[in-house]
Amino acid sequence: MELALLYSGGKDSTLAALLLDSFYDVTLVTGWFGVTDDWRHAREAAEALGYGFERVELDRGVARKAVDRMHADGYPRHGIQQVHAHALERVAELDVTAVADGTRRDDRVPTVSRAQAQSLEDRHGVDYLSPLSGFGRRAIDRLVERCLEVESGPSGEIKKADYESELRTLLAEHHGPEAVETVFPDHTQTRVRGLKE
Amino acid sequence: MELALLYSGGKDSTLAALLLDSFYDVTLVTGWFGVTDDWRHAREAAEALGYGFERVELDRGVARKAVDRMHADGYPRHGIQQVHAHALERVAELDVTAVADGTRRDDRVPTVSRAQAQSLEDRHGVDYLSPLSGFGRRAIDRLVERCLEVESGPSGEIKKADYESELRTLLAEHHGPEAVETVFPDHTQTRVRGLKE
Repeated sequence: MELALLYSGGKDSTLAALLLDSFYDVTLVTGWFGVTDDWRHAREAAEALGYGFERVELDRGVARKAVDRMHADGYPRHGIQQVHAHALERVAELDVTAVADGTRRDDRVPTVSRAQAQSLEDRHGVDYLSPLSGFGRRAIDRLVERCLEVESGPSGEIKKADYESELRTLLAEHHGPEAVETVFPDHTQTRVRGLKE
Repeated sequence: MELALLYSGGKDSTLAALLLDSFYDVTLVTGWFGVTDDWRHAREAAEALGYGFERVELDRGVARKAVDRMHADGYPRHGIQQVHAHALERVAELDVTAVADGTRRDDRVPTVSRAQAQSLEDRHGVDYLSPLSGFGRRAIDRLVERCLEVESGPSGEIKKADYESELRTLLAEHHGPEAVETVFPDHTQTRVRGLKE
């Protein structure tokens, strides 16, 4: 069974892939607004892990709206939520049995409610899986420690392909570089380099 | 890492074991109120699947209260919920890194809220995992079809080791056989015989 997993190159979506790959033919899929080349970091991680990779184009208008919302809010939560919902719609259009993401039990954002999940499934005729939604933060940390080679550092420096890189760029373009510092205060990001032996 | 999975011999808890066993040393654990010998059906399934098995004793007072509640309600939901919470507490007392169950996204009962999960984790120093809580009904049906040899039939006849067997017996004992028919109307149950090749 073919499964498309929304993939950032980070530890959560990588762990989601490992949990699913005994049951599905997993392809890692990264959304791209056409703003930066950061999707390549996800492809690199996918290659290091031995998974197939695909890039799907996302609607730049959605990113623009998300960025305006973040700027108005002063924090990224709702904007990220809009972008994630859009990316899931795009992935669900692929010719697969199931789509998945790395959403965790303790995530504040993005979240996918049971109603949203069922709506996505019904409208696209796919199964939606969030294999980490039954795992808490500490369980995930333990699994990452055991399975993955990870590098971590400040959010502006770590080369990932989550929505943040492109959204930061758009935010700076439309609302100035100081908006980026307000909306995305410095935090530690992680990036997966490969599997531990 | 040792993991104790609350196990009934049914398809959900079996699938939960398969999802977790690349990451954990899974032991299947069945609760026992000391009422019937149905826990043996879970041990049989565990043996067929090649997992370690353990029986934990549950408090008969909890079963008695659950049965009274079900009789008063006329349906099993709240009683099952009480019993499941109690069984998870008992399993969390074992010397393991993590405990898990077969709770699914679309289950109405039992459910374990995020707050309950975190409380269980904090009080017992274990991780609580519900690997199927990110899977909908259809995804689970597809995985079962692909992975498991299953037998199904009327709920009174299929030999399982979920709480239902012992609770049915207690219910009949304390409230008469007609109470069993009210609280547990006929439904189809499934039991796992082993893995598909």
